[in-house]
Parts: sequence; structure tokens; C-alpha cells
Amino acid sequence: MKVLGIDLGGTNVAMAVVNENGEILVRKTIETKVQEGFEKVVERISKAANEIISEVGGVSKIGIGSPGSIDHKNGLVRFSPNFPGWINVPLSKEIEKRTGVGVTLENDANAFVMGEKWFGKGKGYTDIIGITLGTGVGGGVITGGMLLRGHKGIGAELGHVVVDPNGYPCGCGNHGCLETIASATGISRLAREWKERYPNSIISEFTAKAVMDAARQGDPLGVKVLEIVSQALGIALGSLIHIFNPQLIVIGGGVSRAGDVLLSAVKKRTRENVMRSFWDTYEIVLSDLVDDAGIFGAASMGFEEIKS
Amino acid sequence: MKVLGIDLGGTNVAMAVVNENGEILVRKTIETKVQEGFEKVVERISKAANEIISEVGGVSKIGIGSPGSIDHKNGLVRFSPNFPGWINVPLSKEIEKRTGVGVTLENDANAFVMGEKWFGKGKGYTDIIGITLGTGVGGGVITGGMLLRGHKGIGAELGHVVVDPNGYPCGCGNHGCLETIASATGISRLAREWKERYPNSIISEFTAKAVMDAARQGDPLGVKVLEIVSQALGIALGSLIHIFNPQLIVIGGGVSRAGDVLLSAVKKRTRENVMRSFWDTYEIVLSDLVDDAGIFGAASMGFEEIKS
Repeated sequence: MKVLGIDLGGTNVAMAVVNENGEILVRKTIETKVQEGFEKVVERISKAANEIISEVGGVSKIGIGSPGSIDHKNGLVRFSPNFPGWINVPLSKEIEKRTGVGVTLENDANAFVMGEKWFGKGKGYTDIIGITLGTGVGGGVITGGMLLRGHKGIGAELGHVVVDPNGYPCGCGNHGCLETIASATGISRLAREWKERYPNSIISEFTAKAVMDAARQGDPLGVKVLEIVSQALGIALGSLIHIFNPQLIVIGGGVSRAGDVLLSAVKKRTRENVMRSFWDTYEIVLSDLVDDAGIFGAASMGFEEIKS
Repeated sequence: MKVLGIDLGGTNVAMAVVNENGEILVRKTIETKVQEGFEKVVERISKAANEIISEVGGVSKIGIGSPGSIDHKNGLVRFSPNFPGWINVPLSKEIEKRTGVGVTLENDANAFVMGEKWFGKGKGYTDIIGITLGTGVGGGVITGGMLLRGHKGIGAELGHVVVDPNGYPCGCGNHGCLETIASATGISRLAREWKERYPNSIISEFTAKAVMDAARQGDPLGVKVLEIVSQALGIALGSLIHIFNPQLIVIGGGVSRAGDVLLSAVKKRTRENVMRSFWDTYEIVLSDLVDDAGIFGAASMGFEEIKS
């Protein structure tokens, strides 16, 4: 069985044909060129899809992971910050029309956790929380083997769990959401805000990567920011563990590339926030699909649909 | 179809035979007498159960709602603060043996939300959050029509969502859990802590009921405590709405008897904490099963099991 996974991004569209064993048989990346409008983007995606589908002699399904608010049931992109003007566009139907293959469309953070279940560290698990630390913070949850969607399909917004009611204002209108601290944007801001207190810090470029690299080397500003970030993640994950009683929490997204320096801090802080009866009930890991997490996530939605 | 619902409490055991329309056909309450030990309590419950079962000519199932940590799958009470010494006791099996009727056992807060789905304000809904404000704060969640249990069956501990990381220490070992503020115990403590600032307050007895009654009359101490409580609930419910995208949030438990003064404050505070795209996606209501919520919850677990 083969599925084409399409990872729709604001800059690039990455796609690959994946088999059930999680092997990538053929892949292709094209520019999104959002400014050309929905029709042209759909044309370009479909053309590329048809090319690699024919290379492998056909696929059973296409799975698409997209940022933004997705109407999975009807295959619509409701709206997405990265795709201005895409309001309730019938992405699934348009791709189906041009490829002749059934399409399943899902929010990229939901697809992420499903990808972990099919091809990553969540194999064999029924209760998994996925959290992606990128420009923003996204979330996806599998509970009792089922993807949590909510009645309008907009649930699992784990980036908007409040970790500090008096914290930073968030783009969502609220204050102190996890996303204001644990995203790449949040980390970058924290480093700028604290830099005067740490004049000897080696950090000169205030990216999340630079901050995490510095933390790994024991740089005091890096360590300070990591402390704030892991504390926020610890509070949020503590609450989420009490809510979902998961077997596994998988952290992905660009910030997760920080590796063990982040993971060990988050594990420690989370445990501080979890009640005793939950202590040995969960694991926290980093995704190892990182670069292809979007493709695997999208493909897994296809496999999941075939299975059900 | 008829089910016997048993609401197991530390002081009393209330039971009733309920039909699918939510009519109570016959009921009985006995003292728990925990101090007599598991065997004797089971004997007494079974005897009372057999009496009312025979009054209605038999039931299809027995549902039991119990506080504490419940192993639903195996019908065990793992442990429960109200039942010292009950460690992994096979409650379902023992009641089955003595009544000849199949038993389903569930945590009382999980049973509460299922009761709302079958007999209360959640009828016809698939995505419901139930929250009980009693001595502690309990939670139950139905997502996609399915009761959220988590992989060890100990999920939906909504009372242990953190609303203030620097808040009161909680019995669970953490700080600032919702339960430290929005429970009857929390409300009582808040009133005592703030009373010196409000020497003209009419509150003399520091129970949650007295505080809420005073708030309803505009008493400044009552209003202050209500403000803190509804703010905490607003933060927690805001996060839970982002997580579950529910249609309905039902608030039950003794504190919910405060009625509209509580409900309207909680609605206002919750909305302040919810992002715009979720604004018109949920309702918040008070349970109207209050006195019999335990029985209806327990009975609903029986009906749910028969259905599936």
C-alpha cells in the first residue's frame, strides 16, 4: 500500500510517496508561490503529485497536512495565516479532481501526532500527545486510539493552554499562552528581554537555535531562557498529563532540534508538575521524524483513513 | 430497559433503578459504614440492591460511580481517599457475585459527564466537558462521543489543571491547581483569608454556600471571592475549550447550587480567556441533575455499556 503525503507550507510544498513501513519511495518539493492564488497553487501541486504518483505506479490515497483551521470532514481550508485569501477553499476536492485519487486533509499538528503513531515513536500506542515547537506551538492528541478533533474540528490547540495568566499577550487575544514562551518567536523574545542582565553571554544572534546552542554550552543567558521555556512546558505538560493520562508525549518542530538539553529540562520540570499517581505513567521524547515529520504526518492521515 | 445506578459515597450509598427516559422507578439510600470493611460494605450494598431490583422485576445492568482511582476495565477500586484500606478491591466482581447482574464501575466524575449525556443537558451532544465543584474538583470528558479515560483510566483530572503556577499548594503536591480555588474547600479558605479586608461583610460562617449566598446579595467579601473563583474557572475552562473544542460544558457538584451568580461570572471570565475563533462554539450550563447526578451518572454507565 502506498500513500502520497503532501506537507503544505507557506514557502514550499514537500511531497513524497510513503509505504506502510514508513519508507519514502520518491519525493519532490516545489515552491508554493501563494501570491499566485488558490487555483494556480492547486494546479502546480496536482501536476507535481501526478508526476511522482506515476513514477510509483499509483497510490491508494493522498494525505495533506496544512497549517491553519481545517475542515477535515469537508476537505476545506477554512483559513490559514500563511495563505491569505484562502477562505473555505475546497482543497481536497480540487486535488481529487486533478489526480483522480481520494484526498484526506488535516491540520498539520494533528497530522504530526498521527505520523508519530504510524511511523515515529508512537507506534503501538493509543494515547499520545504531540506538541510542535515552531514559529508557533501546535498540538495534536490521540486518545483511546482516536484523533481528538472536537465538534468543529478545531480542538487540540495546545499552544493556547495558559501557563501564566499574567503573562505576555498572545496573538489569540489571551495572555500567557504556552505559545508566547515555548515557540521559536517566544524564545527569541525572551533572549532579547533578558540580555542586559547577562552581558557576558555569547549569544549575538537572537534566534531560538542560537539560544539553545548557547544553553547547551552553559551560557548564562541561554540557560536562563531554557529555564523559563522548560518551566512553561512543564506546567502545560503537567496539566495535559492530568487531562489525558497519555503513554507518550512527543515533542517536534524546529525548536526540538535543540535535543537533549531541552528534553532533559522539560522532563524535570514536567515531573515537578505531575501528581504522584501519574509519575510512572508517561514518557516524554523528541520526534525523530523532524525533517520529514510533515510528510509522514500527511501520509499517516491517508493510511489511517484507508484502515478505518 | 432498566439499570440500577449506585452512587457510592463515603457516608451514604444512594441507589435507584432508572429507565431509559431518566425516570427513577424506585430508590434506596443506606449508610456506607466504611469502618466495617470492604466485605461488609459489599454485603450491605448487595442486599439493598437485590431488594430494589426485585421490586422492579429485574434490571439489565448495574452501574456504580465511585470516588477515587478506578480501574474500569477490571472493575477495581484502586484506591479512594474515602475508603481507607480499599486497595485494588474487586468491587464489580463481588457485587456481580451477590446480585447475578453485570456491573460496570466508573470514577464518579466520569460517570457525571456520561449522566449529563444520557439524562441531562448533554443529550444529543458528542463533545462535552463535565466539571464537578464539590469538596474537590472533579472532571469528566466526552470527546467524539467517547468517554476520555487515558491509557491507565486515570485521565480527566480537570481539578488538577494549573491556573496559577505560583498559587496555593495542592494536596496533589503541585501548586495552583484549579481545585485549590474552585472547590468548596478553596472557597471557604479564600473567604477566611480575605475577611479582614472586608469588615462589613455579612459572612459569618465560612462555608462555600454562605459565601455564594453573600455574593448574590452583593456582599463585598462574597463578591471578591466569587471574582477569584470565576477567574480561576475562566482560565481553566478557556484552556479546556482550546483543547477539546466542546459543544457543552456542564458544571455540577454542590458549589454549582450557587446558581446564576456563579454561572454568569464564569461565562464572562471564560469568554475573556477564549480565542475569537472559538467564541460561538460552546455553551456553559449548570447541571440540573444536581441531587441525583450521582445516581444518573452511575446508571448512564450501565446504559452506555449495554448500547456498545
